[in-house]
Amino acid sequence: MIQNSVGRMVPNIVNGIPQVPFKGVGKFSPEGNQAGPLIRNCAEFPMDGNKIVGSLKEALKKAGLKDGMTISNHHHFRNGDLVMNQVFDIAADMGVKRLRWFPSAAFPCHKPVIDHIKNGTIDWIEGSLNGPLGDFASRGGMRGTGVLRSHGGRWQAVQDGEVHIDIAIIAAPTADEFGNATGDRGPSACGLLGFGLVDTLYADKVIVVTDNLVPFPCVPWQIQGQNVDFVVVMDKVGEPEKIVSGTTKLTRSPDRLYIAEMTAKFVQAAGIIKEGFSFQAGAGGTALAFAIYLKEMMIDAGIKARFIRGGSTKYLVEMLEAGLTDFILDGQTFDLEGIRSMRENYGHVNTSPFTSYNWHGKGNFASMVDVVVLGATEVDVNYNANVVTHSDGRMLHGIGGWQNCLFSKCTILPIPAFRDRIPIIVDNVTTLVGLGELIDVIVTERGIAINPLRKDLIKATKNSGLPIRKIEDIKAEVDDLIGGPPAKPESTDEVISIVKWVDGTVIDSIYKIKE
Amino acid sequence: MIQNSVGRMVPNIVNGIPQVPFKGVGKFSPEGNQAGPLIRNCAEFPMDGNKIVGSLKEALKKAGLKDGMTISNHHHFRNGDLVMNQVFDIAADMGVKRLRWFPSAAFPCHKPVIDHIKNGTIDWIEGSLNGPLGDFASRGGMRGTGVLRSHGGRWQAVQDGEVHIDIAIIAAPTADEFGNATGDRGPSACGLLGFGLVDTLYADKVIVVTDNLVPFPCVPWQIQGQNVDFVVVMDKVGEPEKIVSGTTKLTRSPDRLYIAEMTAKFVQAAGIIKEGFSFQAGAGGTALAFAIYLKEMMIDAGIKARFIRGGSTKYLVEMLEAGLTDFILDGQTFDLEGIRSMRENYGHVNTSPFTSYNWHGKGNFASMVDVVVLGATEVDVNYNANVVTHSDGRMLHGIGGWQNCLFSKCTILPIPAFRDRIPIIVDNVTTLVGLGELIDVIVTERGIAINPLRKDLIKATKNSGLPIRKIEDIKAEVDDLIGGPPAKPESTDEVISIVKWVDGTVIDSIYKIKE
Repeated sequence: MIQNSVGRMVPNIVNGIPQVPFKGVGKFSPEGNQAGPLIRNCAEFPMDGNKIVGSLKEALKKAGLKDGMTISNHHHFRNGDLVMNQVFDIAADMGVKRLRWFPSAAFPCHKPVIDHIKNGTIDWIEGSLNGPLGDFASRGGMRGTGVLRSHGGRWQAVQDGEVHIDIAIIAAPTADEFGNATGDRGPSACGLLGFGLVDTLYADKVIVVTDNLVPFPCVPWQIQGQNVDFVVVMDKVGEPEKIVSGTTKLTRSPDRLYIAEMTAKFVQAAGIIKEGFSFQAGAGGTALAFAIYLKEMMIDAGIKARFIRGGSTKYLVEMLEAGLTDFILDGQTFDLEGIRSMRENYGHVNTSPFTSYNWHGKGNFASMVDVVVLGATEVDVNYNANVVTHSDGRMLHGIGGWQNCLFSKCTILPIPAFRDRIPIIVDNVTTLVGLGELIDVIVTERGIAINPLRKDLIKATKNSGLPIRKIEDIKAEVDDLIGGPPAKPESTDEVISIVKWVDGTVIDSIYKIKE
Repeated sequence: MIQNSVGRMVPNIVNGIPQVPFKGVGKFSPEGNQAGPLIRNCAEFPMDGNKIVGSLKEALKKAGLKDGMTISNHHHFRNGDLVMNQVFDIAADMGVKRLRWFPSAAFPCHKPVIDHIKNGTIDWIEGSLNGPLGDFASRGGMRGTGVLRSHGGRWQAVQDGEVHIDIAIIAAPTADEFGNATGDRGPSACGLLGFGLVDTLYADKVIVVTDNLVPFPCVPWQIQGQNVDFVVVMDKVGEPEKIVSGTTKLTRSPDRLYIAEMTAKFVQAAGIIKEGFSFQAGAGGTALAFAIYLKEMMIDAGIKARFIRGGSTKYLVEMLEAGLTDFILDGQTFDLEGIRSMRENYGHVNTSPFTSYNWHGKGNFASMVDVVVLGATEVDVNYNANVVTHSDGRMLHGIGGWQNCLFSKCTILPIPAFRDRIPIIVDNVTTLVGLGELIDVIVTERGIAINPLRKDLIKATKNSGLPIRKIEDIKAEVDDLIGGPPAKPESTDEVISIVKWVDGTVIDSIYKIKE
């Protein structure tokens, strides 16, 4: 274990791979070249373009599935994925052991994977672990260390050769026999497939699994058949109705609605809402409410945005279709209206983590966004924040695009001052995921705190009448109310997962909890 | 010089790089990994996304232009490009020497480059040389050996690391300050930018040059800003009206119209015109006429194609808009109607040489096409064909997608039996560019010859009433008429260019002509 530039202890080797400790925002300079995928040969592929094989099992066998491989997939079906449990059932059935699962995210529907870790099929999962899998990992259940990466960090890791994918599985709502695939149509439409794009570019073998085969060419081809080895047709690949789950519902809490409204008022007071501006609001309930307040302000002021970054929801689609923005630049559709809009609206544009978030490219979209509204589980008085662990130390959430979005021109965390009698503003975040220097504003029901680094925002909102306070004061008030700061989480010194920064360096460790 | 598998003598080292002699169609198995581009870092790019620099010269300086570099560009403006002459004028002005120019094709408008070869700025051109540059090269004017590649071969060469591009110049009819760019709109719209795509993926530095800057985001982004280093705004990047030039005009010759009609009748007789079929016809005058005859047959028979491969022209656009095909899968727009259609029609789809032609991928579109109609300068009695040199030995044409298209299910060359009293059917083609085993039918005004390998086509058309003859008989008739086979071209034994096969191996050499 070594201490990184922000004082966190991190392992220097993880799963046998040497790690670079976090050096500060923008301080790590990568060297060398990106991974070069295997050179393939058309002579080894069917000249008529038909890559269909009889079953998922046959495809996995032809792809050479064997012990120790890395298997990847995208999470556009979120909690409605029907493919990956089948993949690991087949692997177990074939007697394959020691796999690394490299999803862009895992959800409660993947709980059966716990059995496959227990039976030796899978050693560990490297990807966002939401809910039961995160809880399992927090208790030390995996053989191998978890690696939490942002969406952009996942692209970076594959692009830079840090993670080599042996077999990528692409659940595709529509595909042709050549492997061209799209997420925006078909009975299981999930919108787009951008989280799986890097997998198809770099994996040795790519298997497209679809329940809606169309004649060549499948247009649009969000995934290109030229990167695909095999196509499997099955009855149903996913349940789009389960995309809407948990975090993607509008809040009904009066406190959170108030926070959302304050956030919108702050954005207005700061002068951010102007012709041609841009924003991103996550899919959390408060962020959705923020977007609705913002919409009303835009209508009142006669202002049109140039673009809104998705995750898209029906609220954003309404804005697009009402002419309140030229574009939704979307990385993930969060509901069925988002899917429909992506299919129907020219201005609803399919993006990928490369486009949006990859730090090791020649720029990305995230830093061009005027204001972004994100959630957090904890924030400290220096505006450092946590989004992956709860204050009890359990790793229950992935990073998503959160770290990447911090590079926006104004990053706001609208969060309740406490949850279940646990204060959210703490002395020291359980896990450091985002740096205070990138987090500009905290909006709670007890006041708005502006990062002292953002003198421009402090000045712009000074006479706004908004309840702007020092973060220390809000913290003290909440601590008083609840009775002091929260007890430190009970954890061991065993690292069950590391947290990567957007540049691939290690920003923090997550520890096994004490049972 | 060594002899390859088809008996042609080829150099084993070209411009200092070891070469693999042609081994037969599908016989060369590539090994290893694709080139890995440099890992870049967002910290080194402007956070607000604005990559505009003051001038082309400034961009070239910032890109580090220096002696011996490889400079690339796309040819979507064909004879209307206004950027590349400026690039080399600037390079000459800066005193830069020994450049390799790696265009996807060069046109007569690039004739000033000859002066830059003479003054030492450029050593040689590696790319299709049409017209005066080809003539110049044929007379031994370049310091360095030309390398003719197909569109797919160019992608393969860059992808596989055979050609490393230092600086790519992307003339873009519309772009934003981040470098997102599209060819389908703007005052200089040229349709698409697919020939430059590989350049942007692999070059160390990418400069987008536009005359139509739009607010971020430029949608569609045929070129992604995440691959772009600098953006330059200038008055005019190209003259789209000059895209239509030479080969892209409908023939008026009665002989060629007859050949086109015979070709369409052959395709009909062979049973290829059926619901959901596909075809590709090049932009040559005869190929365009063929498409018009085919269209009439489709209307008469009530048949709709699933897709047509472009180069698109107004004739193909009419078919799309009349509902005679679901899609145009387009690699290059050949006229202003093609450009308009790509912008307006959902079914007019932007492709790239990766999608269409790259042999070192997991399949490509070319082999899925039911019938393709191509030109040739010469064909021999074994159906081997030449498309790059004239019978006088001068290298006057590029390969384009020609070699790649030979993989279609039925490849037809509709060609006049002689041109300017020179027979086209010869004993031995001056330059071997396409293998007889891939060329199925020759249609001349003196009869149709079917490759004996295609017993299926011979059988299907036996009772068609079409003038099907042995290729030897057609040849003999023409030789009789003109007075014997043509004299062998006068050439030296100095290789001025090699011709690559689609897999990167060397299929033939082109020699300096005797003055």
